[in-house]
Amino acid sequence: MRATLLYSAGDVRVEDVPDPTVQDPTDVVVRVLRAAICGSDLWPYASMPASEQGERFGHEFLGMVEEVGPEVSGLKAGDVVVAPFVWADNTCDFCAEGLHTSCRHGGRWGAPGVDGGQGEAVRVPQAQGTLVKLPVSEDSALLPSLLTLSDVFPTGHHCAVKAGVGPRTTVTVVGDGAVGLSAVLSAHRLGAERILLMGRHTDRTDLGRDFGATDVIAERGDEGIERARELTGGDGTHTVLECVGTKKALEMAFAVARDGGVVSRIGAPQYEEGPIGLDMFLRNITLTGGVAPARAYIEELLPDVLDGKIEPGRVFDRAISLEEVPDGYRAMASREALKVLIRP
Amino acid sequence: MRATLLYSAGDVRVEDVPDPTVQDPTDVVVRVLRAAICGSDLWPYASMPASEQGERFGHEFLGMVEEVGPEVSGLKAGDVVVAPFVWADNTCDFCAEGLHTSCRHGGRWGAPGVDGGQGEAVRVPQAQGTLVKLPVSEDSALLPSLLTLSDVFPTGHHCAVKAGVGPRTTVTVVGDGAVGLSAVLSAHRLGAERILLMGRHTDRTDLGRDFGATDVIAERGDEGIERARELTGGDGTHTVLECVGTKKALEMAFAVARDGGVVSRIGAPQYEEGPIGLDMFLRNITLTGGVAPARAYIEELLPDVLDGKIEPGRVFDRAISLEEVPDGYRAMASREALKVLIRP
Repeated sequence: MRATLLYSAGDVRVEDVPDPTVQDPTDVVVRVLRAAICGSDLWPYASMPASEQGERFGHEFLGMVEEVGPEVSGLKAGDVVVAPFVWADNTCDFCAEGLHTSCRHGGRWGAPGVDGGQGEAVRVPQAQGTLVKLPVSEDSALLPSLLTLSDVFPTGHHCAVKAGVGPRTTVTVVGDGAVGLSAVLSAHRLGAERILLMGRHTDRTDLGRDFGATDVIAERGDEGIERARELTGGDGTHTVLECVGTKKALEMAFAVARDGGVVSRIGAPQYEEGPIGLDMFLRNITLTGGVAPARAYIEELLPDVLDGKIEPGRVFDRAISLEEVPDGYRAMASREALKVLIRP
Repeated sequence: MRATLLYSAGDVRVEDVPDPTVQDPTDVVVRVLRAAICGSDLWPYASMPASEQGERFGHEFLGMVEEVGPEVSGLKAGDVVVAPFVWADNTCDFCAEGLHTSCRHGGRWGAPGVDGGQGEAVRVPQAQGTLVKLPVSEDSALLPSLLTLSDVFPTGHHCAVKAGVGPRTTVTVVGDGAVGLSAVLSAHRLGAERILLMGRHTDRTDLGRDFGATDVIAERGDEGIERARELTGGDGTHTVLECVGTKKALEMAFAVARDGGVVSRIGAPQYEEGPIGLDMFLRNITLTGGVAPARAYIEELLPDVLDGKIEPGRVFDRAISLEEVPDGYRAMASREALKVLIRP
């Protein structure tokens, strides 16, 4: 089959790799119907050291079950399923607490011996715990929105949930990428009273308004902070959803948080240390968030997607074939595309 | 009257200062019955640059009302009252949310024009909001425990509350100072299942056991982390109460937190930046805590103290007169005393 490999920064190739088969009795083989490129794929795309054999990539996909291991129940060939961006048994104590990213028997796509999602098919370990069956056909118009359940939408949701967003909560979202917009949608879905979106790409912030942003702040740095404070009577917002991952974005997040508030971050931190000194302490600001246990949220988010109440798939603004994946990376890295959908 | 001033690192003096009087109609003048030296007083005691006129010190006191401003109701001369370690109106939106440390009309003891608590009397601004009446006489044996309501006990309580300590929670307390021991007591009071106390002063950790610690870890650094993990099946505890304030202690706290857990800090951070990079993110650790809004908790904690159910005043292991305050600072800084009570 064909699959995506990253050989070094900027060097993405689609190549022939062995067809996946059931290896462990808990495996399922899924033929990929839709996959995506994630903002987090862009960090190694920008900086990965050279690898002789290359690394398999992709962790957002949905597809159709082809082969089912003998210890998997509840799934059969022909089922349409979505996979969260880490695989997990869904039975250990961490999974039971909703922290599938710390599963005692889980792991990540593209790890040695594990397929990536940006390919024609995937061997899914711990398939019964990992996969969620979708009551749709393989040509459903909902596939883009259902695909977001693998990562980007539950990631925004996790960010908002950890922040404690609810009715009477004011929210600032830092970042207008696909995760930032998903965070806006999530905050709106959770009933946030007011949602300030900080971003300067009008096409993206326009989608942010559709998703529920009440105010858009295009100013950056100190001017952006000033604007956010102006809009909130000088106080900042109860919650800040930091959806970028840079130290600058985190500093911005602390600066626009109301005393006693919460900064929830979901952009993978591109820093070792951050500004958590006396100011944060005296203002009783909480820092939370982290890698999203997408699996924990899929059942909760699915009905709204199936009903068409929300359309998180609107973050995809480009669809490509598998062979076009290298250009897809280029387009996302250059911000030509917000988020790229792959149809293998 | 006599009061405590700090002139520079190590230079504490008790001197004559003007007698306090009602200046604003919202003031009350309190004659101090008991005051204390706080661990946080030791940071300026260690490092304050020289000040020509000196700075008034002390923010933990209880006393008897002497004079009442015309806009204060509910208080009269002769009432025994405790003051939290910041004064606050108890009516603004932040106070209503329980964040009296961010009160819109509050401030700190010892600020310019405001008395400190380590003296014979104090003018209390915003007295109706600040002071809590205590149903005891001025010679009650409960005074030491009631005095802890001004700071050290609600500080430990705040740390535990922000961490989300409750039944089925495992807790590590980092630090065996008076705040650490108060955090143990608070975690126990909130029903924590298991409390690991990290500290190496046997007399202090013994009191920690009395307060509810189930395990004491005397090892430091990596050995201490290993020991905490050993005691928790390798996982660490759901919550970690960081009661020191150094970067080392914070690093320790992150290292012994269970994935998905909470580090709550209450030691004023002696660092600008801290270790909040990828490891914390991938493990979904939350960092919370901050300066404690003691006023928010006094009514809740008071009954257990009055009933004698808990004795937070056991953290005081030395009582001195006002004139002996310089020696009290020395004794606490050298760890000769755990916490010093002052009888003006």
